Amino acid sequence: MKHLALVAALAIALPAAAQEAEEPDTPSSVVASASAEEWRAVAPEDILVMQLAPDTRGSERTVVIQLMSPPFSQPWVENLRALAQARWWDGTSVYRVQDNYVTQWGDATEAKPLPEGLEAPDSDYAVTTVVGEEDEIILWHPRQHQRDNHAHWTQFKDGWPSATIVGENTRTLTQWPIHCYGYIGVARDYAPDTGTGAELYAIIGQPQRHMDRNLAVVGRVIEGMEHLSSLPRGSGELGFYSEDEADLRTPILSVRLASDLADPPAYEYLASDSESFARYVEVRANRDDAFYTVPAGGVDVCSVQVPVHRMGQ
Amino acid sequence: MKHLALVAALAIALPAAAQEAEEPDTPSSVVASASAEEWRAVAPEDILVMQLAPDTRGSERTVVIQLMSPPFSQPWVENLRALAQARWWDGTSVYRVQDNYVTQWGDATEAKPLPEGLEAPDSDYAVTTVVGEEDEIILWHPRQHQRDNHAHWTQFKDGWPSATIVGENTRTLTQWPIHCYGYIGVARDYAPDTGTGAELYAIIGQPQRHMDRNLAVVGRVIEGMEHLSSLPRGSGELGFYSEDEADLRTPILSVRLASDLADPPAYEYLASDSESFARYVEVRANRDDAFYTVPAGGVDVCSVQVPVHRMGQ
Repeated sequence: MKHLALVAALAIALPAAAQEAEEPDTPSSVVASASAEEWRAVAPEDILVMQLAPDTRGSERTVVIQLMSPPFSQPWVENLRALAQARWWDGTSVYRVQDNYVTQWGDATEAKPLPEGLEAPDSDYAVTTVVGEEDEIILWHPRQHQRDNHAHWTQFKDGWPSATIVGENTRTLTQWPIHCYGYIGVARDYAPDTGTGAELYAIIGQPQRHMDRNLAVVGRVIEGMEHLSSLPRGSGELGFYSEDEADLRTPILSVRLASDLADPPAYEYLASDSESFARYVEVRANRDDAFYTVPAGGVDVCSVQVPVHRMGQ
Repeated sequence: MKHLALVAALAIALPAAAQEAEEPDTPSSVVASASAEEWRAVAPEDILVMQLAPDTRGSERTVVIQLMSPPFSQPWVENLRALAQARWWDGTSVYRVQDNYVTQWGDATEAKPLPEGLEAPDSDYAVTTVVGEEDEIILWHPRQHQRDNHAHWTQFKDGWPSATIVGENTRTLTQWPIHCYGYIGVARDYAPDTGTGAELYAIIGQPQRHMDRNLAVVGRVIEGMEHLSSLPRGSGELGFYSEDEADLRTPILSVRLASDLADPPAYEYLASDSESFARYVEVRANRDDAFYTVPAGGVDVCSVQVPVHRMGQ
């Protein structure tokens, strides 16, 4: 009865040769058989390591965040690096957990001064480029696009999902990064405020894609997501911990750029322009291994979790 | 900085008249102004009340589940009622929590005998009807359909989301229920096994829609979802609690049909064929209140959470 998903584990355990001969591909088997050249290292300056206070059993809680790649959200990403280097988050907390929505952290007092020189970005949430010009960033990838309720299509570039709308003159593409489970965004006040990045949230439920283009997506959790998603929900309005729940706030001990650590963890992701990634998307959309009898025929962009793992693991 | 979403609360607090005059509709304001006739009671025999052991702070944990309406998944739903009446789940546990996937419960020993007479259904996961015949169940609702990667369209009936594929001869419709956040499905072994309903899971992350038509969707959590989603993740394979984590299993004290309780909780949902529901979907797809500057232009079916609340609240 409990075998719902044990099948996937079984497939991983089989040698690759046996699988090719006998078993249909699964997303896991495609990732496991990707070649070394299809993986790309994440730069240490694109990794934030957040140390939360130990849990009630005394276990360490480390959350590792990969920062968004260009061309998206870079003014906020720069702020995040500056905030980490100023050690601004040390001593702050996770102060809001709203079920099926977000976990949010930063300065619960709303009084902590920001580092000098930190600017509130007035950058756009989307990037528009002219088709055929040199800075054009993403075109149609027939093997990895998904239908979408919010755009003409979605696709992956440099390991990040984004959405595309073709301009009415068909000469321009407008593209933006997407809120998926585990993705990190910048909390803000009413527009035209765009936030600085000091207050951040992680998506812990069904992504609410109407947040796209209205809030900056600046990264994603690549390790330790469970430390944000399994926290007790706040009973205050919108999941903020109420005054008599202040003890539920999770202290943030430190947040550091991996490039500032003596012994940084290293990660790599499956290149989204690789053959294995294209195959991974196809197999996700059409499971026909032993557990599944009806292939889905398609896949939502956020159901395609980009494979990222710690190097050496 | 923390106002990400406080705007919604503000909108709720305004009197309806003031909103109509000055503020654009929000999903919350549309629900708040729905008329009494637009709400439908959930029948007590369609409600399961699951009592978990109190949490570490001594607080009670009650999870309330609404059972799937016809024509979908009814053989399993019948089993769920029989299992509750046999008190089969009393003394079982939540034994698996896999981040961004499922929380699963039932008999961790895999040895507990099922009630006599409980049949493993061989029912279909989808329903096919002929257009124009009397038993045709769902047609196109222009104001509430969503584009979908897995079907020709999706829609709501009796407060439940489902997907539709039009047959090649355009004379038949095939429809099935959808896995969304908080929805409950029936764990099973390899096909052709379809499970009995004794082992259940709840979706606690990005819904993996390839599970649709491969596993039976039998209900959804309508209260207490946080008691399933915030549990510690299992470190065993696929989120099962490993042998040295057996203390992390959450004991299930009892599961009862509301119709068998002396003082049952009562719920109602916003009728999906009501004007307010259609408006709710439209507003979800096109937020233009003070917090949002770019309307999404569409909404994924699972981002349309059907409004359900406890009566009198």
